[in-house]
Order: sequence, then C-alpha cells, then structure tokens
Amino acid sequence: MNLESTFANRLGNVETSAIRELFKLLAKPGIISFAGGFPDASMFDVEGIKDATTKALEATAGAVLQYGATEGYSPLRDGISRYMAGKGVTVTPDGLIVTTGSQQALDLIGKTMINEGDNVIVEAPTFLATIQCFRLYGANVIGAPIDDGGVIVDKLEALIAKHKPKLVYLIPSFGNPSGALVPLDRRKRILELAVKYQTLIVEDDPYGDLYFDESSTAAAPRSMFSMTSEVTGSIAWLAFAGSFSKVMSPGLRVGWLIAPPELLAKATMCKQFGDTHTSNLSQAVAANYLADGNGARMAANLAKVRKVYAARASTMAACLSTEFGDAIRFTAPQGGMFFWANLTGARGQSTDVAKLAKRAIENNVAFVPGAPFFAHDADMTALRLSFATANEDLIREGVARLGKAYRSL
Amino acid sequence: MNLESTFANRLGNVETSAIRELFKLLAKPGIISFAGGFPDASMFDVEGIKDATTKALEATAGAVLQYGATEGYSPLRDGISRYMAGKGVTVTPDGLIVTTGSQQALDLIGKTMINEGDNVIVEAPTFLATIQCFRLYGANVIGAPIDDGGVIVDKLEALIAKHKPKLVYLIPSFGNPSGALVPLDRRKRILELAVKYQTLIVEDDPYGDLYFDESSTAAAPRSMFSMTSEVTGSIAWLAFAGSFSKVMSPGLRVGWLIAPPELLAKATMCKQFGDTHTSNLSQAVAANYLADGNGARMAANLAKVRKVYAARASTMAACLSTEFGDAIRFTAPQGGMFFWANLTGARGQSTDVAKLAKRAIENNVAFVPGAPFFAHDADMTALRLSFATANEDLIREGVARLGKAYRSL
Repeated sequence: MNLESTFANRLGNVETSAIRELFKLLAKPGIISFAGGFPDASMFDVEGIKDATTKALEATAGAVLQYGATEGYSPLRDGISRYMAGKGVTVTPDGLIVTTGSQQALDLIGKTMINEGDNVIVEAPTFLATIQCFRLYGANVIGAPIDDGGVIVDKLEALIAKHKPKLVYLIPSFGNPSGALVPLDRRKRILELAVKYQTLIVEDDPYGDLYFDESSTAAAPRSMFSMTSEVTGSIAWLAFAGSFSKVMSPGLRVGWLIAPPELLAKATMCKQFGDTHTSNLSQAVAANYLADGNGARMAANLAKVRKVYAARASTMAACLSTEFGDAIRFTAPQGGMFFWANLTGARGQSTDVAKLAKRAIENNVAFVPGAPFFAHDADMTALRLSFATANEDLIREGVARLGKAYRSL
Repeated sequence: MNLESTFANRLGNVETSAIRELFKLLAKPGIISFAGGFPDASMFDVEGIKDATTKALEATAGAVLQYGATEGYSPLRDGISRYMAGKGVTVTPDGLIVTTGSQQALDLIGKTMINEGDNVIVEAPTFLATIQCFRLYGANVIGAPIDDGGVIVDKLEALIAKHKPKLVYLIPSFGNPSGALVPLDRRKRILELAVKYQTLIVEDDPYGDLYFDESSTAAAPRSMFSMTSEVTGSIAWLAFAGSFSKVMSPGLRVGWLIAPPELLAKATMCKQFGDTHTSNLSQAVAANYLADGNGARMAANLAKVRKVYAARASTMAACLSTEFGDAIRFTAPQGGMFFWANLTGARGQSTDVAKLAKRAIENNVAFVPGAPFFAHDADMTALRLSFATANEDLIREGVARLGKAYRSL
C-alpha cells in the first residue's frame, strides 16, 4: 500500500488545471501575455494601501495581530455594508461575512450546499476554479449556454426544470471568461426562476465595478442582489460573492459572502473549521482603504483603472479586427478584463485553438484556450484574451504576433 | 421547501461549538478569563511586525499586492524551511506549502484524505476544531486515551489495528487541551506504528516553541518530524502542520503544511480551489519578521514569552493546589498554554464541571469544560484552564474566585 492509494475519492473528480500547466510556459522572456486573469499591478494604489496599513498597525495593532471573529473584522464588515449601499444593495454588517478572497465564498457555498451527485448549473463557459471547487464537493456541473447577453434564460429554465440543481452559479457582470453583461430584463427573469423553482442563485461579482461607460450615472451595472426588491421572495434564494481583488488588490485576499441568514450561519461554521478567520491585517488594510476620504480614494483610483482598461479593450478590439477580420468573432466587452472570441475558419485556417495556443507561444504571445472553461461539451474554437495587464503598445504588438501565428497555421 | 432543507448532509455531522456559545458570556465586565485559546497580545512584537510590514510594502509592493502562487510566497517558504532547520527538520522550500493558519492545513488534509465514513483517530481529548473539521468531511472520529505523557501507545496501536483509520491526528508537544508532552520513546513508537500499519500520522505543532525549561540546549521538544530519520520509511507516512499563531501573531493567519510530495500536490490543488492563496501581505510580513536579524528578533521575543508563560503556569499550579488541594488533579505543564485538570470530588463537592463553569461565571471567572474536547465518551470531570493571557496577579485572583465558586457548589 502507498499513501496515494488512501486519498479521498473526491480528488478523482478534478484535475490540476490545464491553464496552470500553460502558465509554466509564460516565464519565457519577452512573451506578451493575454493569458492571465490578473489585474494590472501598476495600477494598484500602493500609496493608499501603505497609508491604510500604517493606520492598521498604529491604531489597532492589538486587535489586528490577535485572533479575530470568524465572521470578519468589524470595521471591515461595516465598510463593506457601506460599499454595497453605494451599489444599491442594502445589507447590514451582520448580513455578510468576510472571506479569504471570493474564491473562499464559493468554497463555503460548496461545502454548505453540495452533496455528492448534486446537480449544479453554471454558465458555459464559466470561471474554471468554480467548476473545480464545486466538483471537489461531488457536484455534477452542468453548463447553460450563453450568447452576447450572457446566460440564455429560456435554456437556463429548461435546464433547471430538468436537472433540479442545488444551485445556479452566475457571473452576470463582465463574466470570466465571457466578458458578457447580462441585461436587466434577464437578471429579473433569473430572480423569478429562483423563486419559481426554489433554487439558490449564486451571483459572483468580481468585475461589476470595471464598467467602461461613465457617460451616464446609470453606467454601473446593477447587481442581481440590488434587484431582489423587485421580485418578491427572491432575496431568500440569492447568495452574493464579492471581491476586492480586481478593484483594490488580489494579494490581500479579501472577499465577502452575502447570503440568507441560515446559509450564512452554516457557512460561518464551515469557515471556522476551515481557516478560523481571514487575515486581520488584510482585513484592517481593506477597511482603512475603503474608509479613506469616505470612499473617495478608492473611487478615484477605480475611475483611473476603468479608463485605462477601456482604452486597452478598445485597442484590442481594433487590432483583432485588423489582424483577423472575419476569421474571428467576438463582441467587444463593456467592462471587466476579457475578450471571449471564436475562430471562424472564414479564411481557411484551422479553428483548433489548442494548435493556435502552441504556435502563439512560439511567436512570443500567449492566451488561454476556451475549452477548460466548459464543464462539458467544450467549444474548441473559443479563446480568452485578457487586455488588463498589457499596455496599448504591447496589445498592438501582441495581437500582431497572434495574427502572424494564426496565418502560419 | 425552504433553503435550509437543501443544505448538504455533511452539516449534520457537526454543531456550532458549545465553547463558542460560552464565549458570548465572557463579554461580562470584570471577568477573569482562563477560557481562551489566545496568546497574550501584550507580548506580540508590534514594533518588529511594523518593521516587517514596512519592508513588505517598500521593497515588494507589486508582488505583495498582486496574486501569488497557491503554494505560498517564495521568501516565506524559504524562511520556513530555515526555521524548521533550526528545529532539526530538513525540508526544502518546495516540500511545504503556506496555509491560512494551521487550521487550513488540517482542512486540506481532511479534504485530501477523508471519505464519508472513514475512521480517524485523535487524542481524547484533542483540539475541538480538528474534530469538527474532520467530521465535516464525513470522518468517524475515534478518541485514543491519554495519560500525563500524552497518547498511550499500546492503546493507540490497538485502536489502529481495530479501526484501520485513514489518519491519526496528534498534538504531541503541549497539546490542546491536555498540555501533555509526549516523551521521545513514545514518539518513536508512534512513527513505527505509522510504518507498520501504513497509516498517515498528522503532527500538529503550534505549541512546541513554548517550552519552559531553558536550562539545557535540549529543552525544546523534538518534533516527530525531526525523528523520522530514526525510523525507516516513516517520513512517507507523516504530515506536519506548523503555525506562527502562538509565536508571532494569530491575526496574520500564517501556517504551513509539510507532507509527502503526492499528498502536498493534492493539498495544493484543493487550496487553489479553496482560497487561491494565503494573504501575500501576511506572508511577506511573516517572511520579513522571520528574517529579521537572521531569526534573532523572533528568538528574543520568544524567549521573553516563554519566561512569562512559565511564571504564569507556575503561579497557576500553586494557586490551584492552595484553593483545591486534593479536590483537583492535574500535572503542571512543561510548556504551551494550558492546564488540563479533573475534579476528584475528594472534598465531597460535585465533580460536574458544567455546574462549576456556570457558578464560576457568576463569580466573575471563566474556564472551558473539558467535555467538548472529546469526540465521544466525554470526561465530565475535566476542565481546561489557560494561563496565557492573565498576568500573575489576575491568575491569583481568578483561581481564588474559582475556589470560592467550587466550594459553593
């Protein structure tokens, strides 16, 4: 006998991500990467975070360095409550818990909700780590098809009726990898489905603040959570995962979970026996940064980030059209960090994205094939391109290399 | 239907801790608490941690605030490798992963190893959150009896032979709640059992640095991990959970897991889909603090903590003897943070610790009954007293109140 033969069966449900293997190739010098899911570190507000850190250790070192409550550091729960109020969501500080990144919010939902063999519906495609996270709890993950407006509600309803899922997981605002923004009428219909079928909806919203259109005050997409007042009973069937990773710093690992009280209580218990609580230092830094100028400091930095990402997205759209023409199909995103595209084969080249990925790395540019983002029935012609970390010059050069790689197939 | 009726079955295996409920009573003003499992915040090296934090954000802000590797922040993995070398353990940086506190190391072991219905052996009594953590993965937790030298090896072997456990979890150095120090001959025999029965041993070592006897260079207890070289094949069956919570700061939530490579790889995968990685800010602070003066800064602070805790333990032992005489039985601990004691009834009073706990709170002193630390067959005469957070005057006053409460039963 060896140790490996004694491992838990749940490990058989997942594999180490193919993307993780790809990332090992990205260390190649001179490569331009559209492959990551990282925000641009050069736009982190380092001075603001330094100030927030100094405050945390000057004023509150005893509390910050000691054990804290599993539910989260009180000033941060207050701060998140105010932050959500600014996004039209009414949630009291005790209606949310702080998590070690929003990934842990998903993990706690998995642990709290999923039995071996339970069906779970996600968008096809969706965030890879969510699929894996839920599979580790034994979920049978079913993909619901999307179009340019995200999940197609009629098809989602048919899947809910057929599979009676334990929960439906969605990233309605600038989804990863789709980049799609689900329109308000669809959001409302999804909330109605939650009530009709008594099914938990998990709204994951890491990108909602990264909208590009600041022309109107209504530019920020409304979360499904903020719409629960319009659909009677829906708040009892909605959980919300929030994150500061894309708008403050991912390295701090601060996210949060809002959920109906009985679910939140059980998630808190699972967290207690999972990591006791999230780093108090990270939590205090996030709380102080949120409070800086009553939110003005974070808002100013975010406005800058939106502007830069919007310009990069626009450049990427133009370059893709120039390089690929009708050989690629995409809808330019209105926010977030990603282009989702398909090779059409219109110019006679292969539509096999895996081949293109290899050739691209030979040409010193990288992206992620779309296939791993599907729970099943992967679209082998799809790819994801992040425009968040490369500046516009690098985007021009990178897409040119990609076009060259494509034409050489 | 309601949401609660759709929760996962695993939640039925655990309850929110009775201790957690007790802790709500401790907000009472003027109470002297021996109930906590916290280190003394007044002995945190706040200045040292401030320096470490400043360094983290001056020199490495980009890396610290960005996403990091699931395995951990490289300089910290290097630092932990050196720290373990100082404790006689040879482990390369890639032989360990950083976890969000050692609680997460246990959670990852549970996720990686435990199937529904698997047997797991722990000390009776043991750390409550471990029992709950493993039960959430479906473990049937079996307690192995202890004496003043920790787990009784003959009885442990009989239980292993009978129950064929997936793993055996031990806190061999100043265990929580037992305070017991497992002697070297027992440690060696346990390693032999691991090999003989091909059973994973999980050594949890949060307290090993808190030894009181500095009279000889051999005062620090040797970890079982450091003894694997003496028992052929045992390193393939040993995992080690480490923590900075008791020797640096629990609020940072930095622990680590050392395990055989195949187990470590799967634990890393589970962590990736659990919380992506541990707070980089916390990790960088821990790395810088560890490196300060090549470890001298941490060593100096630890020496101070040991001295203070030793004096408090000695005072508590003397006061317990004065107040209770033969009505209480305990072995004074040689390190750690806890007294484990039993009411003997020798003076005719009730030995029901739950009753004493209530009466104690009425008398403005608190401790934790021993019962919740047993997976089954709880000893209702046992109690745990922490001497870590109250100074000697408060210990004298608190034990006097406890004696009064006891005599009033």
